Amino acid sequence: MAQINSHYLQLSQNYLFSEVARRIAAFQAANPDSKIIKMSIGDVTRPLCPAAVEALHKAADDQSRPETFHGYGPEQGYAFLAEKIRDFDYAPRGVKLEADEIFISDGAKSDLGNIGDIFATDCRVAVTDPVYPVYVDTNVMLGRSITYLPCTEANDFVPQFPAEPVDLIYLCYPNNPTGTTLNRTQLQQWVDYARQTGAVILFDSAYECFITEADVPHSIYELEGAKECAIEFRSYSKTAGFTGLRCGYTVVPHALRGTDEQGNTVELNQLWRRRQTTKFNGASYPIQRAAEAIYTPEGQAQVRETVDYYLNNARLLREGIEAAGLTCRGGVNAPYVWVKTPEGLGSWEFFDLLLQRANVACTPGVGFGPSGEGYVRLTAFNTLEATLEAMQRIMNYEL
Amino acid sequence: MAQINSHYLQLSQNYLFSEVARRIAAFQAANPDSKIIKMSIGDVTRPLCPAAVEALHKAADDQSRPETFHGYGPEQGYAFLAEKIRDFDYAPRGVKLEADEIFISDGAKSDLGNIGDIFATDCRVAVTDPVYPVYVDTNVMLGRSITYLPCTEANDFVPQFPAEPVDLIYLCYPNNPTGTTLNRTQLQQWVDYARQTGAVILFDSAYECFITEADVPHSIYELEGAKECAIEFRSYSKTAGFTGLRCGYTVVPHALRGTDEQGNTVELNQLWRRRQTTKFNGASYPIQRAAEAIYTPEGQAQVRETVDYYLNNARLLREGIEAAGLTCRGGVNAPYVWVKTPEGLGSWEFFDLLLQRANVACTPGVGFGPSGEGYVRLTAFNTLEATLEAMQRIMNYEL
Repeated sequence: MAQINSHYLQLSQNYLFSEVARRIAAFQAANPDSKIIKMSIGDVTRPLCPAAVEALHKAADDQSRPETFHGYGPEQGYAFLAEKIRDFDYAPRGVKLEADEIFISDGAKSDLGNIGDIFATDCRVAVTDPVYPVYVDTNVMLGRSITYLPCTEANDFVPQFPAEPVDLIYLCYPNNPTGTTLNRTQLQQWVDYARQTGAVILFDSAYECFITEADVPHSIYELEGAKECAIEFRSYSKTAGFTGLRCGYTVVPHALRGTDEQGNTVELNQLWRRRQTTKFNGASYPIQRAAEAIYTPEGQAQVRETVDYYLNNARLLREGIEAAGLTCRGGVNAPYVWVKTPEGLGSWEFFDLLLQRANVACTPGVGFGPSGEGYVRLTAFNTLEATLEAMQRIMNYEL
Repeated sequence: MAQINSHYLQLSQNYLFSEVARRIAAFQAANPDSKIIKMSIGDVTRPLCPAAVEALHKAADDQSRPETFHGYGPEQGYAFLAEKIRDFDYAPRGVKLEADEIFISDGAKSDLGNIGDIFATDCRVAVTDPVYPVYVDTNVMLGRSITYLPCTEANDFVPQFPAEPVDLIYLCYPNNPTGTTLNRTQLQQWVDYARQTGAVILFDSAYECFITEADVPHSIYELEGAKECAIEFRSYSKTAGFTGLRCGYTVVPHALRGTDEQGNTVELNQLWRRRQTTKFNGASYPIQRAAEAIYTPEGQAQVRETVDYYLNNARLLREGIEAAGLTCRGGVNAPYVWVKTPEGLGSWEFFDLLLQRANVACTPGVGFGPSGEGYVRLTAFNTLEATLEAMQRIMNYEL
């Protein structure tokens, strides 16, 4: 019998969000009348912006005629979209990129999961803790050792440098799940550290559009030297409601290099291109057209409106949680509010309590790593009405 | 500096089709007036069928309203599509599958590229030769040793069992690039061999819809015992013109198992589910709706018409090649015709000759593996007019 990748057996049996979904479903089945408000998974609820819908229709028509039909596209994405990303997402922030440093994909989760392919198997990995489980699980699958960098009240949720050198450092800012940020000085320190130690920062910037404060960098490439040490991942999921459409992109600058076994330097851009051209066949054409439409003046205004809507929910969450006598972080530059459980309750205990008493579903903080114990995550991706209702219930039920 | 995956440096610098595209572009630049007919890459040319276009429009509208908006879907695909696959693609052929044995993805190339993740790194791999480069390259990336099973005139293009045992065997039938098939008896022998030796067959069935002869199995699961030894990959690319939309699926039966380091058996279905839930976020919702539409009566009829159109081109290719005094295989149950080069010319020599004299682009057989030397591949994915014109030119230019 063929031998399996035994590292898979080191993974916890259930992916966090599957377990949350299972518990919610079980509660709902036992209590068919309860109206559960889901503030657990970070899925958006507002519909796709009209500019993107229009572009989808147009692209569907393109596919219906031989003259405008698009078959296999470039694996790294169409230039029409890469150029918009370069000109709208980076140039205005003083970041100059070449279009071929941008790789369009079916979403940041795939890219974050697959990026590990291009590094040596025995790379040492550091992740902040709590953390988006994908960074950990995909490295466990490759058998890599992982260093956790706790982010807690004690360090004001700012991770400290690893005690021992590492090769890859995952940073996600604005952070999922804590909703906290690094300011310009703090992120520059990480860039400097990576350059000094030769580490590569894998910078997950999926929540960039929620940044409201001036001192929080929108791209890691705003920091000096970052092109030599960082890969940046972006998503249209939260910005433009693309969770069901699937599109994101990854920036791998030409200046970023690794070494082979003989110590020769190799462009990571070239390796990622080889990975993507070999194991991926490009994001869907209609979906790339929908993403392109976000960069029109109408698209930009519509996206801004949606982001502001979620940010208003985040504010209401923060205020509601505090009014209920609880403490929290996040929700200012992020769609996530990180709530400290009352009276030393464990994350899953508080999850069950919130579900049973208030019929509000959250995500248990400990599911994101050991330092998440004693916290739960609430998301702002809901309707205004549901957000207000959830906060009302939490206040009423005296949690 | 972080160490890279040095196996990448073992890969040939250019992916075959990139090199073909480069040479075509260079020739076109030097000869701006020549009208090149591309019979090289296997991309379709006929537009998306009306049923799928209509479904795309409807899904775009779904995404425009909160009540019908679809965010994150199940990573393994929506039940509405998995059930259609089960009931239309398998049940009528006597193959009973559970919906959760079907994993919908953004295309067979991704799945074929990623499936290696769930096996031990030191798995021994066998591929037929010539072969779709993705099987080889994705295993080279993991540092695996590869055994080539030559398919040549000498064995009538039927691969022989490997001399030494292997763990994974890639079979693609109808075959890309040769267009040849295995009949029921021959495929049963491979299934029996795999079961006897404990190997897993990775069965690429992307060209299934082109089968015209009764003795050629449409699914490997039509053969006895195949559920215990085979994973099957399917694509909507050629069937329904989805090369630009990106959708396919992979079947991993519950009966299929591997062993861990301790010799315990593990369901591969469970491992692939873990891989996909962790490193993938589902195929695009509108695209899955478009795939679903293929299973309506209109969709079925439209798809059949397109497949017949390409099969007619394949017939014309075969007849044209033979009329030009050349010999070929394939084109009966496949959209590919495998042409033997005249007078012992090398594949790339004949590629250049065809391009220069007839302005017809093909794919050099040697690009698919050593046993492809002395052949080129022509594809039927073109218009009837271009196919006739290409054959006319080849006859005129006395190649």
